[in-house]
Amino acid sequence: MRLSRYFLPVLKETPAEAQIVSHRYMLRAGMIKQASAGIYSWLPLGYKVLKKIENIVHEEQQRAGHMPMLMPTIQSADLWRESGRYDDYGEEMLRIKDRHDRDMLFTPTAEELITDIFRSHVGSYKDLPLTMYQIQWKFRDERRPRFGVMRGREFYMKDGYNFDLTKEDALHAYNRHLVSYLRTYERMGLQAIPMRADSGPIGGDDTHEFLVLAETGESEVFYDSAVTDLTFGDREIDYDDHAQCAGVMEEFTNLYARTDETHDEALFNEIPEERRKTARGIEVGQIFYFGTKYSEAMNAVVQGPDGKQVPVHMGSHGIGVSRLLGAIIEASHDDKGIIWPEGVTPFHVGIVNLKQGDAEADGACEALYKSLTALGLEPLYDDRDERAGGKFATMDLIGLPWRITVGPRGLKNGVVELTSRRTGESEELPPEQAVGRLTGIYNVAAQRG
Amino acid sequence: MRLSRYFLPVLKETPAEAQIVSHRYMLRAGMIKQASAGIYSWLPLGYKVLKKIENIVHEEQQRAGHMPMLMPTIQSADLWRESGRYDDYGEEMLRIKDRHDRDMLFTPTAEELITDIFRSHVGSYKDLPLTMYQIQWKFRDERRPRFGVMRGREFYMKDGYNFDLTKEDALHAYNRHLVSYLRTYERMGLQAIPMRADSGPIGGDDTHEFLVLAETGESEVFYDSAVTDLTFGDREIDYDDHAQCAGVMEEFTNLYARTDETHDEALFNEIPEERRKTARGIEVGQIFYFGTKYSEAMNAVVQGPDGKQVPVHMGSHGIGVSRLLGAIIEASHDDKGIIWPEGVTPFHVGIVNLKQGDAEADGACEALYKSLTALGLEPLYDDRDERAGGKFATMDLIGLPWRITVGPRGLKNGVVELTSRRTGESEELPPEQAVGRLTGIYNVAAQRG
Repeated sequence: MRLSRYFLPVLKETPAEAQIVSHRYMLRAGMIKQASAGIYSWLPLGYKVLKKIENIVHEEQQRAGHMPMLMPTIQSADLWRESGRYDDYGEEMLRIKDRHDRDMLFTPTAEELITDIFRSHVGSYKDLPLTMYQIQWKFRDERRPRFGVMRGREFYMKDGYNFDLTKEDALHAYNRHLVSYLRTYERMGLQAIPMRADSGPIGGDDTHEFLVLAETGESEVFYDSAVTDLTFGDREIDYDDHAQCAGVMEEFTNLYARTDETHDEALFNEIPEERRKTARGIEVGQIFYFGTKYSEAMNAVVQGPDGKQVPVHMGSHGIGVSRLLGAIIEASHDDKGIIWPEGVTPFHVGIVNLKQGDAEADGACEALYKSLTALGLEPLYDDRDERAGGKFATMDLIGLPWRITVGPRGLKNGVVELTSRRTGESEELPPEQAVGRLTGIYNVAAQRG
Repeated sequence: MRLSRYFLPVLKETPAEAQIVSHRYMLRAGMIKQASAGIYSWLPLGYKVLKKIENIVHEEQQRAGHMPMLMPTIQSADLWRESGRYDDYGEEMLRIKDRHDRDMLFTPTAEELITDIFRSHVGSYKDLPLTMYQIQWKFRDERRPRFGVMRGREFYMKDGYNFDLTKEDALHAYNRHLVSYLRTYERMGLQAIPMRADSGPIGGDDTHEFLVLAETGESEVFYDSAVTDLTFGDREIDYDDHAQCAGVMEEFTNLYARTDETHDEALFNEIPEERRKTARGIEVGQIFYFGTKYSEAMNAVVQGPDGKQVPVHMGSHGIGVSRLLGAIIEASHDDKGIIWPEGVTPFHVGIVNLKQGDAEADGACEALYKSLTALGLEPLYDDRDERAGGKFATMDLIGLPWRITVGPRGLKNGVVELTSRRTGESEELPPEQAVGRLTGIYNVAAQRG
């Protein structure tokens, strides 16, 4: 993409309403624009990152054997009355009357609707296990929406639902989700720690939240510092293997890590003092096993192997897709702007032309642009007629992990400059070597996928 | 995908509420399930086709230089009051009050919001031309929703908006959209004819609808039969070339083709009688040039080259993404089920094992499955223990364009059967040749993209 043709409305001033760094940078980098309180438009740069994150979530869900589908945003209140949650949900549910005066709502979550689909079509244990998920817009009418996309009213979420014959199978689904979530967050350059949590209006006893440690987190968390040494890494996993998934669950949850909702001071104090940590965390996902809560209320039963009708065991599992942009920025930025991890960066590399209009510099930039594009990389070429300082400031703000700087002086010696946004380190090398380095960096990232 | 693990709730009975063939087949093939009147869940098979169609729309929009972004579904009524459309829109607009009793709405279209984004960030003619688009859920509270996804209340739509300095530039954007739409529909196996239409609540004088001829169409259309001989085909197009785009516009719109809203009997009668046709059509897209209607109402101005502030010229352009599934099925089916065009089929080929459990047949199916997958094709393998007739009926209903049938008898002679869903013709050939044929068929399709 050439910046002269891109819609990137960068702001010089920090908007007054933005209290936290991710909100400030998303506004300043022209990623989002507020449409109403807690409701945002996603401008091209923000949309691009949102899609990258969405794609990683899709890939990891499908790798785990979960089937994508989609449920509507507007639902009838009837199913919610059947489960008993219509009145429970309170003012955060956006209630609507349609032209025929029927009670509708903008769905905040979809346990009822998916259970209705299940009971309409599935009657035998032979069709289990079954896990379906969607990535769809949700609405939660927060009293005080704030922190940009971190606590918006309209938000984009992956919600998945498993249906199993037995509690044991459903707990395998729970473990399988935990494993797939660990992979998902690591691909985004995030460390998200599973912590024992409270289930809230979803229900059930077994639930873990995934938290990214950050000063601006909404939750206070307590953990054994050894938990931050765990990484999922490149390990191969067979998602059908109960023992293997249970092993990962055990490894990632046996150390103490809890939110304030479930914190147990006595247990915490058993950790050696130097490893006892208190911090703040941003919730980026949650998994639940709630057994037969919905299947019993809504009569979602299957015939078991013995011919008897039994309610299915269920769980639901969410990832806050739009919120993740905020969480990633909170975890990865400096005072000049965002620092995108390679896995989610909107463009792989920025090209800065120090002397727009200089035939040699223009030609070298065009050649770089073409060869990067031909190799499947997406560069953002700042081809505007602006001074170098302004170009650098924009690149630093929008946070592309790599920058190639092209100027007449370097070209005389046959080199361009390759700079890491994270370390700030630069290296002079011939253009074709810079291209080679970048394909190496991103091929590694692609193989991880 | 193995059918034994897939959620494909095929119905034997035709649901009573479905009046037209696309609605019947989408329900029977387990593609959708009604959640409320005119509101559907997209089950895995339907979701897969929806995404294929969405991807084609994205690719063709970006090829034309249009930038993807995303606007929220819930908007404040304020902007709609500013444009004057809040009261105009009538009962089809879903109006909502949030917890603070503010007037909100579920957006049926987004001229106001995109104009607000534009006026907030763009101030100079140097930032033009600019075209952005989104593919997002919309809501139109139809009094009598019917025909499944063809006339639903919640629907998925691509809506794009161009901003230009002059009328001439905006008309180029109009032509550019027409060209990109022709490519888009052809890639889906559809002939969609641009017809002069009426602009309705969007406004403006210049507008064309794209109609697919089908008996179940909601519009009566009048056209010169020579228009159905036109195809866009493989031609190269430079979307920045005004004359080239205008040439395509001329070619595809100079023959008579109008909906009943703009039909002119006198003009129609000038066509030679044998080419004068009346039929019904399904609207699958519409393009508009409406000049300064919104930019003047909402003060979206830029500084021109002469330093004066001028309102921008705009147009908007829609493709009914979810509705296209219905239109494609109306245009492509027989009495056994759907016949997907290769460009949008949910799976590239079905594999039917005539004797599940037979070691040789199972092995041959697995080998086919693996080699097709390795080549980037997505097969649906019916590995259920069911009789051949049932397997064939399911494959015919869900409409995959190609089927490979594997049975012990053929395998003794080293062959499998490759069958075209469209023609019904079968051919016996060795498995590796069947794979070769399919990669040939779909490579051609991929190159067209």
